[in-house]
Amino acid sequence: MNQYKFLNKIKSPDDVKKLSAQELVTLCAEIRDKMINTVAKNGGHLSSNLGVVELTVAMHRVFDSPRDQMVFDVGHQCYTHKLLTGRFDDFDTLRREGGIAGFTKPCESEHDIVISGHSSTSISSACGLAAAKTLAGKPGYVVAVIGDGALSGGLAYEGLNNAGRTKDRLIIVLNDNKMSISRNVGSMAKYLSSIRSKKSYINFKSDAGRVINKIPLIGSPIKRVLFKSKALLRYAIYHTTIFDDMGFAYLGPVDGHNVESLIEVFQTAKEIERPVIIHTYTVKGKGYTFAEQNPSAFHGVSGFDVETGEISRSSTSFSDVFGDEMCKIAAEDDKVCAITAAMKSGTGLSDFVKSYPDRLFDVGIAEQHAVTFAAGLAINGMKPVFAVYSSFLQRSYDQMLHDVSIGNVKTVLAIDRAGIVGEDGETHNGMFDIALLNTLPNMTVFAPTYFCELRAFLRDAIYNCDGPAAVRYPRGTESAMPDDFTPSLGSFDIYEGGKDKLIVTFGRIFSYAYDAEKKLCADGEKVSVLKLNRIKPIDPEAVKYALGFKKVFIFEEGVTQGGVGEHFEKLLYSQGYEGKAFITAADMPYVQHCSTESAMKKLGLDSHSIFSKVKMG
Amino acid sequence: MNQYKFLNKIKSPDDVKKLSAQELVTLCAEIRDKMINTVAKNGGHLSSNLGVVELTVAMHRVFDSPRDQMVFDVGHQCYTHKLLTGRFDDFDTLRREGGIAGFTKPCESEHDIVISGHSSTSISSACGLAAAKTLAGKPGYVVAVIGDGALSGGLAYEGLNNAGRTKDRLIIVLNDNKMSISRNVGSMAKYLSSIRSKKSYINFKSDAGRVINKIPLIGSPIKRVLFKSKALLRYAIYHTTIFDDMGFAYLGPVDGHNVESLIEVFQTAKEIERPVIIHTYTVKGKGYTFAEQNPSAFHGVSGFDVETGEISRSSTSFSDVFGDEMCKIAAEDDKVCAITAAMKSGTGLSDFVKSYPDRLFDVGIAEQHAVTFAAGLAINGMKPVFAVYSSFLQRSYDQMLHDVSIGNVKTVLAIDRAGIVGEDGETHNGMFDIALLNTLPNMTVFAPTYFCELRAFLRDAIYNCDGPAAVRYPRGTESAMPDDFTPSLGSFDIYEGGKDKLIVTFGRIFSYAYDAEKKLCADGEKVSVLKLNRIKPIDPEAVKYALGFKKVFIFEEGVTQGGVGEHFEKLLYSQGYEGKAFITAADMPYVQHCSTESAMKKLGLDSHSIFSKVKMG
Repeated sequence: MNQYKFLNKIKSPDDVKKLSAQELVTLCAEIRDKMINTVAKNGGHLSSNLGVVELTVAMHRVFDSPRDQMVFDVGHQCYTHKLLTGRFDDFDTLRREGGIAGFTKPCESEHDIVISGHSSTSISSACGLAAAKTLAGKPGYVVAVIGDGALSGGLAYEGLNNAGRTKDRLIIVLNDNKMSISRNVGSMAKYLSSIRSKKSYINFKSDAGRVINKIPLIGSPIKRVLFKSKALLRYAIYHTTIFDDMGFAYLGPVDGHNVESLIEVFQTAKEIERPVIIHTYTVKGKGYTFAEQNPSAFHGVSGFDVETGEISRSSTSFSDVFGDEMCKIAAEDDKVCAITAAMKSGTGLSDFVKSYPDRLFDVGIAEQHAVTFAAGLAINGMKPVFAVYSSFLQRSYDQMLHDVSIGNVKTVLAIDRAGIVGEDGETHNGMFDIALLNTLPNMTVFAPTYFCELRAFLRDAIYNCDGPAAVRYPRGTESAMPDDFTPSLGSFDIYEGGKDKLIVTFGRIFSYAYDAEKKLCADGEKVSVLKLNRIKPIDPEAVKYALGFKKVFIFEEGVTQGGVGEHFEKLLYSQGYEGKAFITAADMPYVQHCSTESAMKKLGLDSHSIFSKVKMG
Repeated sequence: MNQYKFLNKIKSPDDVKKLSAQELVTLCAEIRDKMINTVAKNGGHLSSNLGVVELTVAMHRVFDSPRDQMVFDVGHQCYTHKLLTGRFDDFDTLRREGGIAGFTKPCESEHDIVISGHSSTSISSACGLAAAKTLAGKPGYVVAVIGDGALSGGLAYEGLNNAGRTKDRLIIVLNDNKMSISRNVGSMAKYLSSIRSKKSYINFKSDAGRVINKIPLIGSPIKRVLFKSKALLRYAIYHTTIFDDMGFAYLGPVDGHNVESLIEVFQTAKEIERPVIIHTYTVKGKGYTFAEQNPSAFHGVSGFDVETGEISRSSTSFSDVFGDEMCKIAAEDDKVCAITAAMKSGTGLSDFVKSYPDRLFDVGIAEQHAVTFAAGLAINGMKPVFAVYSSFLQRSYDQMLHDVSIGNVKTVLAIDRAGIVGEDGETHNGMFDIALLNTLPNMTVFAPTYFCELRAFLRDAIYNCDGPAAVRYPRGTESAMPDDFTPSLGSFDIYEGGKDKLIVTFGRIFSYAYDAEKKLCADGEKVSVLKLNRIKPIDPEAVKYALGFKKVFIFEEGVTQGGVGEHFEKLLYSQGYEGKAFITAADMPYVQHCSTESAMKKLGLDSHSIFSKVKMG
């Protein structure tokens, strides 16, 4: 299907409104085709986007964006929205540098209301948007689309708790795809499934007449809300839901792949003069067999063969090695537990959960709970390891401080996706974890460059640190280890090349620094490399070594303020250093979507930039 | 009541178990007497502690601490627990340096299981403690005590979502005092009140026989749980609650001031082989008329007259001035809104809510939501100011980054209780906000020393910054402004005294620095003071000025790494500074409860320490 009948002509949501019901079905098929073929080449979030095609089409049919504002939670399901809001022509650039982002971005379109990428924010955002409309007397609805997975995040609950009893024109679309988190964990997920199985589905076609939705708010008189929609609800709620208890009008469950039903339910929602929750059920990966059969594999994917469904193989990753080492440690020590916030597969724990199901806790998208829960496990003698992406760890800063650090509770963090992640862009880059952890006095942090170091430092974190400890490692695989370098597995390594200038770095930047050092020495410079393995606390011997150089160049894949560089420099000068120190780190840490290689260049952290900086410095 | 009959003889929870029902009632009265008289002198949390006397006595009667582990959410209701666990003799030292802490502290007693101070952590902690017991086959229950206010925090929900369907021996006591958050906000608070008003109270005495608690889990077969307790429940649940939906066995509501009822319900809970929620209703301030009548005033109090209930008057605080200026700004500008996370009174917004109720959003204890909600308001044209204590802002770091900073959304933070707070100790000191905000590239941060500066910088933050901005100010009142100092209300001020040594500081430390400078100059030193008003970004002119001094001494009331000092030093050296810089900041930021004055000495930030450091340096 290279030539579309409708999709290429959709220049704005107004064009969606011109299509008939049957034409919308065709449009949905075209959207799926476009998404599958684009993600096959560019990578991206496929399953979640395939699941909300009809939902998004129906939203743009009923609502009037941007007057009505749509907020997509996480934003990993915004492709249909982008295709319908004037971005079809650029869609081939999806997730490419300078192209369309994989998440919503206000700078990209007036139809993208908020930055997205992190989970569970949409209800709170929508709440604020809607309250401002009410205060300013501005027209229009605010519609938040949130998955059942994101609903496990505490922020979503805080939003619900505040939204339910307002008078604002707020509509929450609960996109229940039964998949976002592990089936057996999470009361809310189980609760939603109980609603699905118990309640009769709303059937808009089979009944006519006036429908009364009884909303028995416990403790207040029964209220009646009359729905004025043309096609009416046969079954209103015969039992209140948690959402009714929270003050919402609950509509659903409704088939999220039936455009007509969705249009009806949205129209109904518009006529209810208080916040509404629409519960839709959808199928992740809908319309692409391989994705339907294995939605997790196609959740975030680098690329695949459309015909065979074969996913581009990637090399062994740090996540894989972490998972493997965790299994080995767990075999030796029955106190070791793993915790994940809905990222079993992403963090490499798929094998662990098979071998040690009792010691793997998938807490849902709940990073705050994960840390405080881990602290509880540790206090009672277990050795918990929380595997988490760097950018999501940001959610649990207060728990790391209050529940772990103050009491010096021995909890281990395995921080995956530390540093630049590439195409997912600025909300997913892990640029802040070092600065955050640096504020916690008794925290130890390791930054392996190679797999063998990850294995060793993970064991150090679990067994050889008095207090909490973290191991941070990047997305993807290791660089080839140079023949003339042997890791000491100690707190730092030295690669000697000359006593004039010193490059100080850690993690994967070492491989770039190594290359630069080779070229610099070939170019007549006298340069050595100090590779920090334990970046907190920094070994005083490492600082002492650096004192012997005239110039010290620090390269750091992370934000500047509060980073390793600033602290190393302070240690240098406090030791009476009389040379000069230079820091290259992320002064502008919000690196847009692009390849990791390109991001490194932008940050001045690739081999060439390091070469130039040291040469000129 | 100077001589107690029972309380002074309670050396451990075992002694509680020896008393008869009637004796326990007397014990409760004695506990109240002890608490009222101690808090009147030492200050502390009175209302919340008076509310849980019977609850805590009953817990220690039924459970066997520390084998059974008790976790008190926030910990501001742990005084009875402390009095019953061997700390009666030391109770006069409550909140005094070296004395009994106002919150639970594992280093103080084996009966204190976790660090407390921040809200909504108890369920997650208890979850981890209980899971570890299950894994290790250790005996005993874990009992979490959480107020209805703390239940508005997302972390509590994440905990519930994970706890409900486990098999662990977990008991959650929901202490519903109907007061913790504003009556009209928060769906959960309203929901709880609906349960209270609808359900018949459990009456343990009036009925006998076998009671069957029907727990109709929607979507699964109806399960029957047989209670084996001797005195039985007359009314089991006749309608499911949210808590049943979340997988808990729900017991209640039960009168939280009836020791016998409480004992019965705890005994019942022990026999249910899955997680239980016990819903008790209590009265904040119970047993002390003045506190019952005005529980907010006696929530956290510095001291009061026991006979008259007159609370020690405190001087005008930064909070008062903030609230006053907010009212003035709101009068001029109808776009300005205020947001508080259950701290209307504490942050000085009591008058604002009276004058501008539509523009005051009390979101409950939900700092994450507060920030993302504020961003939504701002995107739609409002000018939101979130007033929050520094140590609670830690909860919203990811929201500040993801929802505010990346998109450069114009949101203002009014950060109260920044720096040392004194007797509330390490969980309440605001030592980390600067380091956190320093990581966010487009954030502007002001640090007023005087009230007039707070007023001016608040307006700067709202009107004269392109992106998000924060104003941080300490607990309590301003120092007297020296006659020979006139604030410029610009980005920094200089107090000239000589061109040899420079003291760099900000916020309230300026007054200590000023005193030190006077003495130093009198002592023959040539010292000036650079007072930063805008601590982020630091004005390059301020750095330039510092370059003219041989030695620069930076004093900072906050954590060292990521703070103003490290950054100022980096800026100095990057400008080719050839003198020496010294930073005095909180390398050990977890300052225990003591007076603010004493904490300043410990940190080396009082006048005498500054004098010595600069003199010797």
